[in-house]
Amino acid sequence: MTVAQTDNDTNGERIGAAAHAEVEHPSSAVVRFGADRPLDLDSGGKLSPVQIAYQTYGTLNAARSNAILVCHALTGDQHVANEHPVTGKPGWWSLMIGPGRPIDTDLYFVICSNVLGGCMGSTGPASINPQTGKPYALDLPVITVRDMVRAQAMLLDHLGIETLFAATGGSMGGMQVLQWAASFPDRLFAAIPIATGSRHSSQNIAFHEVGRQAILADPDWCGGSYLEAGKNPHKGLAVARMAAHITYMSDEALHRKFGRSLQDRDALTFGFDADFQIESYLRHQGMTFVDRFDANAYLYMTRAMDYFDLALDYDGQLAKAFAGCHTRFCCVSFTSDWLFPTAENRTIVHALNAAGANVSFVEVETDRGHDAFLLDEPELFTTVTGFLKAAARIRGLS
Amino acid sequence: MTVAQTDNDTNGERIGAAAHAEVEHPSSAVVRFGADRPLDLDSGGKLSPVQIAYQTYGTLNAARSNAILVCHALTGDQHVANEHPVTGKPGWWSLMIGPGRPIDTDLYFVICSNVLGGCMGSTGPASINPQTGKPYALDLPVITVRDMVRAQAMLLDHLGIETLFAATGGSMGGMQVLQWAASFPDRLFAAIPIATGSRHSSQNIAFHEVGRQAILADPDWCGGSYLEAGKNPHKGLAVARMAAHITYMSDEALHRKFGRSLQDRDALTFGFDADFQIESYLRHQGMTFVDRFDANAYLYMTRAMDYFDLALDYDGQLAKAFAGCHTRFCCVSFTSDWLFPTAENRTIVHALNAAGANVSFVEVETDRGHDAFLLDEPELFTTVTGFLKAAARIRGLS
Repeated sequence: MTVAQTDNDTNGERIGAAAHAEVEHPSSAVVRFGADRPLDLDSGGKLSPVQIAYQTYGTLNAARSNAILVCHALTGDQHVANEHPVTGKPGWWSLMIGPGRPIDTDLYFVICSNVLGGCMGSTGPASINPQTGKPYALDLPVITVRDMVRAQAMLLDHLGIETLFAATGGSMGGMQVLQWAASFPDRLFAAIPIATGSRHSSQNIAFHEVGRQAILADPDWCGGSYLEAGKNPHKGLAVARMAAHITYMSDEALHRKFGRSLQDRDALTFGFDADFQIESYLRHQGMTFVDRFDANAYLYMTRAMDYFDLALDYDGQLAKAFAGCHTRFCCVSFTSDWLFPTAENRTIVHALNAAGANVSFVEVETDRGHDAFLLDEPELFTTVTGFLKAAARIRGLS
Repeated sequence: MTVAQTDNDTNGERIGAAAHAEVEHPSSAVVRFGADRPLDLDSGGKLSPVQIAYQTYGTLNAARSNAILVCHALTGDQHVANEHPVTGKPGWWSLMIGPGRPIDTDLYFVICSNVLGGCMGSTGPASINPQTGKPYALDLPVITVRDMVRAQAMLLDHLGIETLFAATGGSMGGMQVLQWAASFPDRLFAAIPIATGSRHSSQNIAFHEVGRQAILADPDWCGGSYLEAGKNPHKGLAVARMAAHITYMSDEALHRKFGRSLQDRDALTFGFDADFQIESYLRHQGMTFVDRFDANAYLYMTRAMDYFDLALDYDGQLAKAFAGCHTRFCCVSFTSDWLFPTAENRTIVHALNAAGANVSFVEVETDRGHDAFLLDEPELFTTVTGFLKAAARIRGLS
């Protein structure tokens, strides 16, 4: 293993220059697995070299038993509790993670790595393919959630952590948590999958397909080779983000937050400008997203979620995925989440029960939709705090 | 008034040639209002000339009292119960309208006109602007639902119909029905607004904005002047259609119809082809739509829906819109419709009750989502049949 030192030009014509710099030279710690440690992929091949960028918070105890792996969602990254190097914003789960927070960095050693296929320093489609000296683009094999988890396990090996105290994450992060329990049950003491599903639904695949088609429709996508061409399909990516963003919020929350309020005007303009606040908000979401995210990485991330169907590897029986698993589970859903509705989360709970696993389930009452897992939701925080405290006692961490 | 005779080239580079031919020379009857009969627009100006293309079915009785106006939805048109001249498919409501059908053409004279701003023969952005000799494109003023209804009233004047026996329609069609009751209460005996709302919600505006941005992001949109440039933003329009199409179906129906089934393959391909049936289905929806619809018309139609907020003209009090209205109402919603959920329809019913109007309300149990109003839904048909029969008796039509 060697730390990445590949040189790479960046310019503002691609993704934001600051974001593109993160691809090869991330602001995070990096481990690079060389030819001696290729990664087996679900698609059949092997990937090598593999670079993983990660952040840690808190201190690993002497017994190496207090590590919590945080798995990020579709467009998240490893900057979970520190200022983001590109946007300058607080980490995406800084309400959840820190000293005295539910995931208390005074007690736990928190690790978050950029997923395989991402664009913040772990090997992804914007990374340089050593065989060509050019970005992989679509030459990177399609990555699955299981591939992401395999890469995380390699990172833990590198860090000398045999068993995780816990793994947690929402949405695609929750899928990784479930995959961890299925693939490495002996390495996982506790698990908190949040607002997720054991498989991506037809409706969810549909929304992702709209996003992908928006990117593919952008002539600046250049068949995927936009980096090489010095272009950036930012318009297509922005449309993809806008469509997805609607699914992260509930109808009620949109009504409460925006309703039909007008944006900086007293009357309708009878045109196609952003008359309504919701239009202006969505456009802003699209525009800021393209400054920090890579269009091909978006294709790979959405595909990984679409392909996720945990039961498929177990004769279609989800309970079998958790057979003999001693991990303690706390599943969380949100009442107004229509992307991963409570029913999808309950399916996981039922399977865990059928497998005789130790599982608790909390449905948090909120009108904030899927994104609630990222927001200030006291019931979520209380749940995570209580579950981890009890698990830590049993694990002998207190 | 004169019938349109403007000549206009068509070619396959634009919208489908057959579709484009419909803009100026529709397969329907046409009335053209000249400078003597301009149309007042909500945006402030007047539109002239105005062409309205329409279909009729059945026979107008001697008392001219058996006319039913059918109002079409966003991407519908006047071909409600006849073979579509472009697609060759049956009319979009041929299950509802015909001899012996709920809207029985043996009893009623059914009229359906292409809405103002459309692209099937009524004046819209693809129509020739007589002042320039070129398509209006974005020079056409933004059209509102009330403008559409004013144009329909002009058509009824032309046909010598003072009072409609009934008006009906789903979605944007339902908005027109509500506007009819508010604008011309004395010209409307009965009304059946289906799967609609008195205003477009924030979430609905958001989905429309995604569609518009997808069109605007297509370089072939050419700032709206694609017809003049001999181009067609079909990629952007297809993405817009795909996003919208998801909102027309319920999560349950998608699960039942497609689930995670693969399209013509036994295993995942680990690529970005349409592995899943739902992807293939959505792509097909996008591709076939662009053959029959004009991108600018899509912008105008979505804007008209977004702008709709009936209460706004009545001090924000919806009940005032129906004050003193003698129209008999039958409101219909569908349990799985999340675009215009039952709650939105119930708001209309509450306002009608508050106004002392005669109103009945049926929530149809179905898992087919918003599109249920177009499908074979026996409870919908029974409801419409029964309501119209009772109303006809009171109206003395039997």
